[in-house]
Amino acid sequence: MKVKYPNPSIKIEKPNKSKSHGMLFENGLNISNEYYRIHNRAIIYKKPTPIQVVKVEYPARNKARIAEAFYRVPSTTDYNGIYRGQYLDYEAKETNNLSFAFKHIYPHQIEHLTKVAEMGGIAFIIIFYRKVNEIYLIDIKVFNELVQLGEKGGLKSIPVEVAKAKGQLVTQGYTPPIDYLAAVDLIYFK
Amino acid sequence: MKVKYPNPSIKIEKPNKSKSHGMLFENGLNISNEYYRIHNRAIIYKKPTPIQVVKVEYPARNKARIAEAFYRVPSTTDYNGIYRGQYLDYEAKETNNLSFAFKHIYPHQIEHLTKVAEMGGIAFIIIFYRKVNEIYLIDIKVFNELVQLGEKGGLKSIPVEVAKAKGQLVTQGYTPPIDYLAAVDLIYFK
Repeated sequence: MKVKYPNPSIKIEKPNKSKSHGMLFENGLNISNEYYRIHNRAIIYKKPTPIQVVKVEYPARNKARIAEAFYRVPSTTDYNGIYRGQYLDYEAKETNNLSFAFKHIYPHQIEHLTKVAEMGGIAFIIIFYRKVNEIYLIDIKVFNELVQLGEKGGLKSIPVEVAKAKGQLVTQGYTPPIDYLAAVDLIYFK
Repeated sequence: MKVKYPNPSIKIEKPNKSKSHGMLFENGLNISNEYYRIHNRAIIYKKPTPIQVVKVEYPARNKARIAEAFYRVPSTTDYNGIYRGQYLDYEAKETNNLSFAFKHIYPHQIEHLTKVAEMGGIAFIIIFYRKVNEIYLIDIKVFNELVQLGEKGGLKSIPVEVAKAKGQLVTQGYTPPIDYLAAVDLIYFK
């Protein structure tokens, strides 16, 4: 599968993103997941970015150099793993605005998370509202309700106040930087 | 992380593998997983091959072309997902020989699967013995016992007879081509 843009507003992840705040959020999640793994609390990894390799060269034996390749659209979500014996799956998103636009997440990713929840897994979207420096975890069923409500009312995004009311605030700190499993505990293991 | 070879006998996956039997096995697993997804039996995906991107060009706006990249060693295993409400994780391997050498799997992958099992997940290795056209599913705890026994007895591999005795034969067919979840049922859901 080559790069396809089912939604033109979604840009495929690029390496120059590394200098942006988006990468800070992603790094925060990766460091948190490493912390969780080291402390045997969960085994959750970010999936590698899918890349379509077109041309490979072999400058030396057993050494492959990719000379041409393209970013692909991910089949599923960014992160998955096991927590408290449960399958856990989520997509991480961040926005510069005070409202998170639905179009910034692929429909097939929402569908994937919905199916995971139907099968008994823990599935959610975690959104970083950069402007107010707040992170909210929103269960996929709640997210789908918000999408439906939005469709009725003409709203195409989740304002930070709605995320606050319908989602769970994620505590930011040092160890781990983004303690989203504490939010998972509050939502799924009460 | 650039390409590192913790074990020189392990080669990083290359695109020219697509013409080998190994790819047939991988394709068989991917088609089976698609079949399982379509029939709402499980949600299991192969993780993308991890690639370290070095250089990206932008021939057009919103179009990124990777001009230099390298294969990396995978952090975890090839496949994971959810089945019967459980987290499931496995590594797929195939051999031309009548015995599967332990060195063909990374120590950190064995460690990963062992931790998954300790956390209550389903974790195994699935081995295709090409010469006899037989596929065996071996639970990670059983696999670790075989490694320990091997270390005592000087055996560095799993002969197909041992896989037959200690593992579970996976039925090959058409829909799905590799019905390994039937073997999972027999081992983990009896």
